[in-house]
Amino acid sequence: VILAVDIGGTQFSLMLVREDGSVAEVRRYPTDRDGGAAWMVDQVVTRGRLLMDRAKGRVRACGVGFGGPVDFEGQRVIQSTHVPGWRNYPISRALSGALGVPVTTDNDANAGALGELMHGAGKGCRDLLYYTVSTGIGGGIIIDGRLHRGANGNAGEVGHVPVAVDGPPCACGNRGCLEALCSGPAIARRAVEALRRAPGRGKRLRKELRSGGPLTARQVFDCARQGDELATAVVKETALYLSMGVAAAINTLAPEAVVVGGGVAKAGRILFTPLRRFVSERLMPVHRGCVRIVPARLRNRSVLMGAAVLAVADRDFL
Amino acid sequence: VILAVDIGGTQFSLMLVREDGSVAEVRRYPTDRDGGAAWMVDQVVTRGRLLMDRAKGRVRACGVGFGGPVDFEGQRVIQSTHVPGWRNYPISRALSGALGVPVTTDNDANAGALGELMHGAGKGCRDLLYYTVSTGIGGGIIIDGRLHRGANGNAGEVGHVPVAVDGPPCACGNRGCLEALCSGPAIARRAVEALRRAPGRGKRLRKELRSGGPLTARQVFDCARQGDELATAVVKETALYLSMGVAAAINTLAPEAVVVGGGVAKAGRILFTPLRRFVSERLMPVHRGCVRIVPARLRNRSVLMGAAVLAVADRDFL
Repeated sequence: VILAVDIGGTQFSLMLVREDGSVAEVRRYPTDRDGGAAWMVDQVVTRGRLLMDRAKGRVRACGVGFGGPVDFEGQRVIQSTHVPGWRNYPISRALSGALGVPVTTDNDANAGALGELMHGAGKGCRDLLYYTVSTGIGGGIIIDGRLHRGANGNAGEVGHVPVAVDGPPCACGNRGCLEALCSGPAIARRAVEALRRAPGRGKRLRKELRSGGPLTARQVFDCARQGDELATAVVKETALYLSMGVAAAINTLAPEAVVVGGGVAKAGRILFTPLRRFVSERLMPVHRGCVRIVPARLRNRSVLMGAAVLAVADRDFL
Repeated sequence: VILAVDIGGTQFSLMLVREDGSVAEVRRYPTDRDGGAAWMVDQVVTRGRLLMDRAKGRVRACGVGFGGPVDFEGQRVIQSTHVPGWRNYPISRALSGALGVPVTTDNDANAGALGELMHGAGKGCRDLLYYTVSTGIGGGIIIDGRLHRGANGNAGEVGHVPVAVDGPPCACGNRGCLEALCSGPAIARRAVEALRRAPGRGKRLRKELRSGGPLTARQVFDCARQGDELATAVVKETALYLSMGVAAAINTLAPEAVVVGGGVAKAGRILFTPLRRFVSERLMPVHRGCVRIVPARLRNRSVLMGAAVLAVADRDFL
């Protein structure tokens, strides 16, 4: 049995996975954004031990998908994308010492890619591209059946492909990145701007905006599904920008499949239908029809399943 | 001794290379654009035999870099990017039969990447990105010391990364590709448009335009070097768009070096200085300072030197 952990900025989860890939138990908890590494490690150890007790000592390894860049060689968090207090933190050593099993950590997008490769929509692929589109946009690249880490270990940042020369500023410091246009918050922001620019239009979307609380990407997709004209335009624009990033990656890497996970991918057909069409229009003829573009199959368990793969895979494979 | 061949749309060249990588002899000839495969194979065989005679029978293999997509597994040209009459042509078999030595063919951008990796600006790298910027923009990707070919064998088309959502149409059928903005002809086209939009400006560049013959990218760079204001703006814009493609590739693949070859790269500092600055501004902090961006060292021999590598390398390595 393996203990899999997914550490994110709003929640963290733990899961017990059997050797055959079947899931025994999943638990989700909210993240204390001010707690930093000490609080999180304490939580994972406490809750992890409870799960390990339930598995009656059969847990032999732990894998962690972390929301931020990880120095895989050194098994250290470089920093958290979401919360302070993680800089250069030796996460695997800290957890391993307290849990008494070997721990392997990678960033959550790489874990998600591994999860989908071994147990999800990318099963059987040798070359796979994984996007996770939620609060930010991350990615993992599988080449010849292995994670591609690049010279500095931080390959796979497909959310920071610039697609608009004068686009909105991105959290990374650049402008016009895919993330700055197509992440959940960016979709909501573009919807609010669209409402502002066209005062008489988008009745349903406007109602959502006025109903209190900040507008979410999910509300934008829901309104589009109900026929709201402005919401539909925002979704179409989202698919268009996403298609630029995906087409860039396919023309460059020629994978067998592009798997799109994360909260935004749950929008389903209303996003994937225009996305597939725009990507196809933007691919070189030689790549057209060669690549499946599919939603992640494991949904919010991609990272956890990948963390389980990390825990027991040969280091050479990773 | 190896016979290396570079087949392009305007010229083709043959070279004898010794086992130690030193060059014995290079010959360049114009391509008959209407001659197709039959004419070219006849030319390469005739001229290749002459060179082989001069090497007194010591030539033991031949490598070819071809200007267009190649089915490497099948050792066939898929089509020429430049000229008709090459569709699905078994080039290596045709040449090998006539020359009496084994022949290995790949597309010229992959060959160029191999040449710079083994003998040029990328020597010693394990992860390398090679751009060739001339009539079109091609590329070759080295991952873990080997060419990355992707699932369908056509990876590396970094010139067809879309960088402007409403950009000019590209030869590939898409719009706003890097190639449609930064290839030699695209640079010249943008310069002509800039002159048209600003009738009172760009005196020196305007003089070049009026001097007869279509404007070339080289003239644009020359005028910029001489201080022409419009030409300088066009060069800066070229560097800006190129930086979007290069930053996208670095954030995605994290190579050790980006090597830029092809005619446009000969512009030198006037292009590379703003290119490096814009790329650095567009990289994620974690990638900044990690990647050298350098001109190809073998200049117009990158492809020939790579063809020589192709000729004698283990198939497993390729």
